[in-house]
Amino acid sequence: MENIKIPLDESEIPTHWYNVIADMPNPPAPYLAPDGQPVAPEMMEAIFAPELVKQEVSTERWIAIPDEVREMYRLWRPAPLYRAKALEEMLGTPAKIYFKHEGVSPTGSHKTNSAVAQAYYNKIAGIKRLTTETGAGQWGSSIAFAGNKLGLEVRVYMVKVSYEQKPMRRSMMQTWGAEVLASPTTLTQAGQHTLEKDPNCPGSLGTAISEAVEEAASREDTNYTLGSVLNHVLLHQTIIGQETKQQLEKVGDYPDVIFAPCGGGSNVGGMMFPFLADKAAGKEIRLVAVEPTSCPTLTRGHYAYDYGDSEGLTPLMQMYTLGHDFMPPSIHAGGLRYHGDSALVSQLCREGILDAIAVPQIATFEAGIMFAKAMGIIPAPESCHAVRATIDEALRCKETGEAKTILFTLSGHGHFDMSAYEKYLAGELEDQSYPEEVLQDALNHLPKVPGIN
Amino acid sequence: MENIKIPLDESEIPTHWYNVIADMPNPPAPYLAPDGQPVAPEMMEAIFAPELVKQEVSTERWIAIPDEVREMYRLWRPAPLYRAKALEEMLGTPAKIYFKHEGVSPTGSHKTNSAVAQAYYNKIAGIKRLTTETGAGQWGSSIAFAGNKLGLEVRVYMVKVSYEQKPMRRSMMQTWGAEVLASPTTLTQAGQHTLEKDPNCPGSLGTAISEAVEEAASREDTNYTLGSVLNHVLLHQTIIGQETKQQLEKVGDYPDVIFAPCGGGSNVGGMMFPFLADKAAGKEIRLVAVEPTSCPTLTRGHYAYDYGDSEGLTPLMQMYTLGHDFMPPSIHAGGLRYHGDSALVSQLCREGILDAIAVPQIATFEAGIMFAKAMGIIPAPESCHAVRATIDEALRCKETGEAKTILFTLSGHGHFDMSAYEKYLAGELEDQSYPEEVLQDALNHLPKVPGIN
Repeated sequence: MENIKIPLDESEIPTHWYNVIADMPNPPAPYLAPDGQPVAPEMMEAIFAPELVKQEVSTERWIAIPDEVREMYRLWRPAPLYRAKALEEMLGTPAKIYFKHEGVSPTGSHKTNSAVAQAYYNKIAGIKRLTTETGAGQWGSSIAFAGNKLGLEVRVYMVKVSYEQKPMRRSMMQTWGAEVLASPTTLTQAGQHTLEKDPNCPGSLGTAISEAVEEAASREDTNYTLGSVLNHVLLHQTIIGQETKQQLEKVGDYPDVIFAPCGGGSNVGGMMFPFLADKAAGKEIRLVAVEPTSCPTLTRGHYAYDYGDSEGLTPLMQMYTLGHDFMPPSIHAGGLRYHGDSALVSQLCREGILDAIAVPQIATFEAGIMFAKAMGIIPAPESCHAVRATIDEALRCKETGEAKTILFTLSGHGHFDMSAYEKYLAGELEDQSYPEEVLQDALNHLPKVPGIN
Repeated sequence: MENIKIPLDESEIPTHWYNVIADMPNPPAPYLAPDGQPVAPEMMEAIFAPELVKQEVSTERWIAIPDEVREMYRLWRPAPLYRAKALEEMLGTPAKIYFKHEGVSPTGSHKTNSAVAQAYYNKIAGIKRLTTETGAGQWGSSIAFAGNKLGLEVRVYMVKVSYEQKPMRRSMMQTWGAEVLASPTTLTQAGQHTLEKDPNCPGSLGTAISEAVEEAASREDTNYTLGSVLNHVLLHQTIIGQETKQQLEKVGDYPDVIFAPCGGGSNVGGMMFPFLADKAAGKEIRLVAVEPTSCPTLTRGHYAYDYGDSEGLTPLMQMYTLGHDFMPPSIHAGGLRYHGDSALVSQLCREGILDAIAVPQIATFEAGIMFAKAMGIIPAPESCHAVRATIDEALRCKETGEAKTILFTLSGHGHFDMSAYEKYLAGELEDQSYPEEVLQDALNHLPKVPGIN
């Protein structure tokens, strides 16, 4: 009898992260300063650990995972790969469906894979404190957990409206000993400035990033951490795809198509980059990022240099963007509400190596519930995007009779998102899409960069 | 390098449940009707499936697990056994600590082990609908999941105050397609009767049981299900201890002492009964049920015949009880707020084969947070009781220098209990214990049974 959960022993946890830059047809576009000049890596060391900055620009194919990080990975990794037989039967599809379950991590999502690495490199650089921002709370929880494991203080600027509406995520961070502040605060200039304009401001991810960066830049003992978008974050996440390849090898299978939810790109990079190496070597495989129609960066955005944050504090990155001041509607897949995308993912989409599709919110929850009924796991709203794409592909296979092998990333569980399911079940969710002119207008706000935009 | 998670393959999931009755020094005390006469098994078939009633009174040592149930178990079982090295290091103890993680189930607790079995036996008996009650929601979620998997309708009578305060658990049940009603309802006589006395009644587990039983008794197509206390429920849970024994064998270890949280007894029976067979064969091992000081049935209750529910609808069972109308304070370990205990667990305690201790609430959350920081898993408040006992034992080992092997059951994760952690962190929790006269008074309410009490 075939296993439902395809095992992998702790001793088989990969020893290296895979750096996709080594196999890209073109080198990544450099990060630029507002004057259009490339940003020197040293400038990033004001707020990032030196090893992370090295990883950000490295062209080495394999980067060794420190023993201390692998030891932390062993608390929850290898993550199980499932064959979703019960879902296949429910759909009546000839397709085979596999999914990698990253919800088994301490914080319930894949974010922890990079959090423990970032905390480790900061620790060995002598850093005592970490700052970060969090919206939905998945990244904040992850860095709270990782900081605690390594004895680093953690301060999380949590968007005020989330701080009030998501007390469970806040308590989770506090359980691991992190200090959680409702942003905007009066502790930073960015916070003060925002509160002067509107004392009742509910906060935004943009402001929270600005506060966390400002504090990290102003203190010797403190660095900043980020949960997606940057190259080194995607690098750490490649543990996902590598484990998955090993597990599929054990059962003698290989995917025809892979789906992963896409916000800042860390799921897409994490699962797909290791397979992209095979594709570069001639293997036929479709790699599809799945984003919400309400924040359609890869499918409807503009490929241009733009800021990573809404305040314009970060370097300029070449990416698919809706404009750094684009405000997506408050869909429940909070992790996918990002105006831009990873520069690596964007460039690989631009070059036709990765594909992207967009799916509407209501259909993602419908898919999530089908999945929960079949497999017993309730997916995070972000993960529901990949589930939707998988079910659609499996139903196409049913029509055509193709026995494709479909793989997707279940990036996290939905235990902290049951209120979103409740709204779906009560018929209270809405879909949102944009007329072309709205997106065009947003794109008019791209920063003017000498010789570039 | 030793594994942190001790693996077991799906093919090694036990094929039989272990029935402790075969190895008890004395046969279990019979269930009695109010007139003091034994209850005939056939009478139970009005609300339970025939196979479950057979299991309730079986003396066979091994009872085969149906293939269909094992297939459902494979969605999450075998549950991982962990070596808690990081906790050992945090405590500086020479003891070895293992724990079985039952929080990996679809509903986040061990309850699902019996839910899929109960749903299966009802299905093959031609039953179309299941009723049950739920307080905290762990059992209700489990039967909702199991009913959905097998195509049975499920109606859950959820204590009204929980229905309002625990919307996440409610949404989880609805996600799996169950109908969830706030009890008391106007649909049953028990509910109507309660509402007549108090139209604003917040509900109680006693009333919810009465409603679920009444409906099941009045409909041919409908049966009732219960999540603990009964022999067949504990039987199904023995999958926990059996898997654990196999996993410990793989690493060549055996526990000196086992701790499990104890409310109705399904964790204690599930983990300890398979080890009790070894104890009966002469092996030295301590088996310790851990209960809250605020509901101290095994440690301070009276061993007597009493009703299983507060309304007196169930047969009389010989057990440790605080009196069927005892109302424990609303501690956060809702699963441990039961006035009585499994008859099997009670009898084995009475005979000195099982031990029992009680721990106060605040100390359990302190232990839960230490555990979460070390191992990355946030335990359910019920599980925190076993964690507390384990940490205390490990600290005693530190004093004495003994390298004991300690095993405990992590019965569930705490993702739906973060508000309890929040209250602990805010210093808002209280401990409650009882002067002897309060308990004595409660015991005066035991039912008068001719020739017995």
